[in-house]
Amino acid sequence: MKVKELQHIVGEGWVITDEERMADYLVDETAVEVRPQPAGELVLVKPASSQEVSSILKLANNEGIPVFPRGGGTGLCGGAIPTENGIILSLERMKEIAVDQDNLMAIAEAGVTLKELIEKVEQEGLFFPPHPGDQSAQIGGLVACNAGGSRAVKYGVIRNYVKGIDAVLATGEVLRLGGKLLKNNTGYDLMHLIIGSEGTLAVITRVILRLFPQLGASVTMIIPYDNRHDAINTVPKILQSGVIPLAIEYMERGPVELSAAHLNMEWPCKTGVAYLMIIVEGRSEEEVYSDCERISEICERYHGLEAVVGKTRKEQERVLKIRSNMYLALKHKIADSLDAAVPPASMGTFMDDIDKIAARFGTSIPMHGHAGDGNLHPHLMKDLLEKGAENLKEVKRKIYREAVKLGGVMTAEHGLGRIRLPDLDIFLGQKEMELMAGIKKVFDRKGILNPGCAIKME
Amino acid sequence: MKVKELQHIVGEGWVITDEERMADYLVDETAVEVRPQPAGELVLVKPASSQEVSSILKLANNEGIPVFPRGGGTGLCGGAIPTENGIILSLERMKEIAVDQDNLMAIAEAGVTLKELIEKVEQEGLFFPPHPGDQSAQIGGLVACNAGGSRAVKYGVIRNYVKGIDAVLATGEVLRLGGKLLKNNTGYDLMHLIIGSEGTLAVITRVILRLFPQLGASVTMIIPYDNRHDAINTVPKILQSGVIPLAIEYMERGPVELSAAHLNMEWPCKTGVAYLMIIVEGRSEEEVYSDCERISEICERYHGLEAVVGKTRKEQERVLKIRSNMYLALKHKIADSLDAAVPPASMGTFMDDIDKIAARFGTSIPMHGHAGDGNLHPHLMKDLLEKGAENLKEVKRKIYREAVKLGGVMTAEHGLGRIRLPDLDIFLGQKEMELMAGIKKVFDRKGILNPGCAIKME
Repeated sequence: MKVKELQHIVGEGWVITDEERMADYLVDETAVEVRPQPAGELVLVKPASSQEVSSILKLANNEGIPVFPRGGGTGLCGGAIPTENGIILSLERMKEIAVDQDNLMAIAEAGVTLKELIEKVEQEGLFFPPHPGDQSAQIGGLVACNAGGSRAVKYGVIRNYVKGIDAVLATGEVLRLGGKLLKNNTGYDLMHLIIGSEGTLAVITRVILRLFPQLGASVTMIIPYDNRHDAINTVPKILQSGVIPLAIEYMERGPVELSAAHLNMEWPCKTGVAYLMIIVEGRSEEEVYSDCERISEICERYHGLEAVVGKTRKEQERVLKIRSNMYLALKHKIADSLDAAVPPASMGTFMDDIDKIAARFGTSIPMHGHAGDGNLHPHLMKDLLEKGAENLKEVKRKIYREAVKLGGVMTAEHGLGRIRLPDLDIFLGQKEMELMAGIKKVFDRKGILNPGCAIKME
Repeated sequence: MKVKELQHIVGEGWVITDEERMADYLVDETAVEVRPQPAGELVLVKPASSQEVSSILKLANNEGIPVFPRGGGTGLCGGAIPTENGIILSLERMKEIAVDQDNLMAIAEAGVTLKELIEKVEQEGLFFPPHPGDQSAQIGGLVACNAGGSRAVKYGVIRNYVKGIDAVLATGEVLRLGGKLLKNNTGYDLMHLIIGSEGTLAVITRVILRLFPQLGASVTMIIPYDNRHDAINTVPKILQSGVIPLAIEYMERGPVELSAAHLNMEWPCKTGVAYLMIIVEGRSEEEVYSDCERISEICERYHGLEAVVGKTRKEQERVLKIRSNMYLALKHKIADSLDAAVPPASMGTFMDDIDKIAARFGTSIPMHGHAGDGNLHPHLMKDLLEKGAENLKEVKRKIYREAVKLGGVMTAEHGLGRIRLPDLDIFLGQKEMELMAGIKKVFDRKGILNPGCAIKME
């Protein structure tokens, strides 16, 4: 696997072949039941610069060696798992970060974690709104996967914040696309094409991100409902009122109480079976409280029960912790976690459809979602597998078909990774796949970049 | 030119070969000096549906006939001018529009004008924030060119609002990309690739756009300054304060007074030579006034003179009219209007650079720009041509080289069209152009779509 040549590029200490030291780099956060197996002959390389990435890719491309770019390994679809013999390319050493106050932008290398980015930006008195879950995710991976998260209601997903990237092609050229620029129409937007391409078109080594001013105050409200449709139907009413919260999350009693119990905490709502969790941020407490009042009024009008309002940082953190922990609390029982998007107003119907499928298969499918975005995460449980592996696949495809009927897509924020490819035919036509395979060929003729995750055509 | 076959597709009345009736379709708003010449053998076709567009493209592709998709013809770079013998494809008859209140989206066919979109959305009590100038622009063209405009400060350019498109490929397939979806990571983002591709990859026939709630109040402020750097340096201070206006425009006394005189109006500022025009919108008058006060304080601290504040709709419209009319007032003297973007904080330096170039060439280069976005429009005047055609080209390339030094790009919001291609080498490397030419081939193997505007490689 060209170990000597790789050592020559990055230095001896940064080429790892020892199995034990490589173990953490063979997995991601995908549920074990559906997680792909890593290949047997791998070498882990840790470059320190775009130039080193370039040299590694040139070498790999010449030799036809597959390369698996890797960030924090927090993905949920096996996108970073090295499924063929080749090179694991970890960007973790590329950690430079700077904030440009005058242009309100952060410039971060690929290996900076979300936690480090948030801390740096806050130190500088600014704010990076998106928060796609796990803070150990790295910026390169977040952009390669166009991560979403709960805070996409107001300003959208990561894509909307990315203004420039450095990307290394399979053939070694380092492209500098975009910049500290808010507008750019200079040719086809290669940057937007690479965002979300999951390491199959180029390796992202540096990113320029738009920042916003820090907001002075925030409140987290939980509004309980006696049924899910009332909750979902309230969402457009809130947005139409002129208040645009940072996040509007949907949760149900079962998973949320399980998560609270798992944390030895108590879920603060005594009423309701369905909940909206709304985070409102603003420049002053008065502004935020007035927004909350407005939201409360609207929720009440649409059958919301009495809201629980977290004003102190501690109260808010407690609720958010329960929300964040839902996947972990369930994880040991989960066979696969889906990530569909439907038009936001159709989320209630979609959940009803999923309940019906669950009933038909004698299972339960707990779910929660980003109600402001129409992004639902149904968790398929291991009990499905007890009745045969085909059951899991069938339930998944049935859920996907319902999503299609509602005008939805297979993945909202997690990406395809490797494990979503087999069902892609439900969502994409032959021609779309042909175009994607054609684009892949233009960027990476030999197909060395993250080969397991690329759409191929015969 | 296959007139009979085209008549068969769209009906006899919608195929036009008469030169007089075609005259308006041979030009756009590009300055006459640099506007490309239309070809001689053309047929104008006006389809009524994606299906008809598909049939036309299939026919054209089979026969190898160039097709020039066309919206409102408001472009400034010759992007819609039919420069080869072939078909002018006007989308003007595709005018369906609907608003989905529950998902806060508009669904508009390509031929809907910006004016019609704004009216429809306002009738429904909602708001489409971007306003890229000329309201006779059509939605298909706005998206094909990823239009910008002055109101990109808060929520960005058109790209950020587009959630779904129907696009017809050269080979006739109708792709439905995205949807009423706020998140979508299902494969490479073909939608974002087609946005801004100026009709060279596919013909956009229908668009889904995100809407926002209508805001209750707005104020337009003009803050005069004694020099441009003070004005430009104030912009990040405003944005850092937490106030994000809808627009922050930069203007200078010369062009603005010319524009006012051209309209028989009076520019309301008696002081200053450089101006920021700031539009603040909010849910209530109190909110807006408090934002304006904050802005005033900041501007004063950074050497702004006394602000002129337009509160009534009439006052605001008067100022905006003068702002919008600047290009028209100058147009008879303009040889070419540029559209560079630089990091917002570098706009002052960029303008100084341009002044120096103007002095060296014995001309004046009036300019105005979107200061919140770092998007500057320098107007190159006809007097440059009097001393030889090479002068115009040289000044242009010198300005572009300064933009590059500052980390800028050639076009922020107008696109490449046809007239920007010869200078593209200043901004894009060989490899980027190769990738773009490769993508073009994947989408349009025979190169029939808007051939004059596509990047070609040998």
